Amino acid sequence: MKKLKRSARLVEMTQYLLFRPHTLIPLTTFAERYNSAKSSISEDLAIIKEVFEEEKLGELQTLAGAAGGVKFIPKVSRAQSLQFIQQLCTQLEQPDRILPGGYLYMSDIMGQPMILNEVGKMFASVFADKEIDVVMTVETKGIPLAYSTASFLNLPVVIVRRDNKVTEGSAVSINYVSGSNKRIQTMSLSRRALKEESRVLIIDDFMRMGGTIHGMMDLLKEFKATVQGVGVFVESGEVEEHLVDDYVSLAKLSSVDPKTRTVTAEPGNYFQNDISDEE
Amino acid sequence: MKKLKRSARLVEMTQYLLFRPHTLIPLTTFAERYNSAKSSISEDLAIIKEVFEEEKLGELQTLAGAAGGVKFIPKVSRAQSLQFIQQLCTQLEQPDRILPGGYLYMSDIMGQPMILNEVGKMFASVFADKEIDVVMTVETKGIPLAYSTASFLNLPVVIVRRDNKVTEGSAVSINYVSGSNKRIQTMSLSRRALKEESRVLIIDDFMRMGGTIHGMMDLLKEFKATVQGVGVFVESGEVEEHLVDDYVSLAKLSSVDPKTRTVTAEPGNYFQNDISDEE
Repeated sequence: MKKLKRSARLVEMTQYLLFRPHTLIPLTTFAERYNSAKSSISEDLAIIKEVFEEEKLGELQTLAGAAGGVKFIPKVSRAQSLQFIQQLCTQLEQPDRILPGGYLYMSDIMGQPMILNEVGKMFASVFADKEIDVVMTVETKGIPLAYSTASFLNLPVVIVRRDNKVTEGSAVSINYVSGSNKRIQTMSLSRRALKEESRVLIIDDFMRMGGTIHGMMDLLKEFKATVQGVGVFVESGEVEEHLVDDYVSLAKLSSVDPKTRTVTAEPGNYFQNDISDEE
Repeated sequence: MKKLKRSARLVEMTQYLLFRPHTLIPLTTFAERYNSAKSSISEDLAIIKEVFEEEKLGELQTLAGAAGGVKFIPKVSRAQSLQFIQQLCTQLEQPDRILPGGYLYMSDIMGQPMILNEVGKMFASVFADKEIDVVMTVETKGIPLAYSTASFLNLPVVIVRRDNKVTEGSAVSINYVSGSNKRIQTMSLSRRALKEESRVLIIDDFMRMGGTIHGMMDLLKEFKATVQGVGVFVESGEVEEHLVDDYVSLAKLSSVDPKTRTVTAEPGNYFQNDISDEE
């Protein structure tokens, strides 16, 4: 690449880092790329670091030494996230979302890539320090969220199927009891989709009693995998006891009443302390 | 926001534009954001534009006048795309992908957000100049690709379901004949998911005879919607006649032979002219 001026280099490096989250980039990569001295590159990175931190885009970690370099860790602050989720809760409380049976229509929200990117970035912030090999979800609605999260963590995605597809090869299937209606259901995961002893982050869009997530955990045992975290976008608050203890939720539907046509939504357990601080 | 130096402003503006594709941003937004003169902002944008074009990240369109501003259109060149797809084809040709029945295992490729981002950017380039309101796909495997494409086009996603879910509200269902095995299947789309007369881009991961995509087109008629384009990641070349005429494919499986355990893959119809140029 031809020698760039500092101004052009800053634009170039910014986009390079943003598109390569959680990836260690040696300073020599930049130095060679721009035909510049490492000292100039370090100065550039200091400028980028300051803006990223000021703008709350994430951290720019610099690792010294021979194996050193720079790594971009996308992060949103809890305060920023809370503000975003509170706006989302207002949307969730629109009465015309109520469907027969007390279900809530959320597909319009889940269909907006910009919202999913924000939520994925939140999960990527929450689980940024965990050792994770793969993000897992079950079809269908959790898929976009799992990809968005994985994209910010620079990890692959594995999708558990409700049925056993010919295009997946040999698979491991389990039966599980869905928490709310006590029906026996099946889920399966392709043998080759997941290496044994993988460290897994489970992401899903909605959790009532947690039967589906509990099923995924059972399935993971068949792969000798360990669960490093569970992230749920919206949880139902109308549940006495969960089948899953340890999870992070971003929003909570406290009540959905088809009779009075009212929905109440609040920030999830991730914000527990922030909320009590406010009060 | 406090007044920033040019260097910091460039970093800030670069990330601001990258995260807001296909969105018109008035110069005053930047001028107020950074407390800077419009003339300085214009100079900044000229630098960013040059790097974006040199790096083939996309176009920075500047619109003059009162309603003017700047718009980032993500675009990858056909040459860059071809190189990427040729590497992918080499991956697709790995013999251990062959499954019983001559199916090909592709879930590992489809599980990598970085690959999906590249492919989504290609579709966003192909259909950048079309008037589109929404990106549509059918569950399950096309979903990540549809989101990636939609994210670069700044559009919402609509997902057609194989079944009729309680969480979708009232829906329109159609029956269609799957091209390859002649089975009657059902697909449905929530009434409220799509406004009437929407302009739709259909995206899917795989197309054999095109039965599923043809089904989506039929479904769209029920919504008085128009199809503005069809993008398919991989098409099967082992088909005499397609049910869909007008589509863009990025890769083509010319043959999958379980007996000899050989797969041949080549770039899709999008690259037709580039390939013949090379020969």
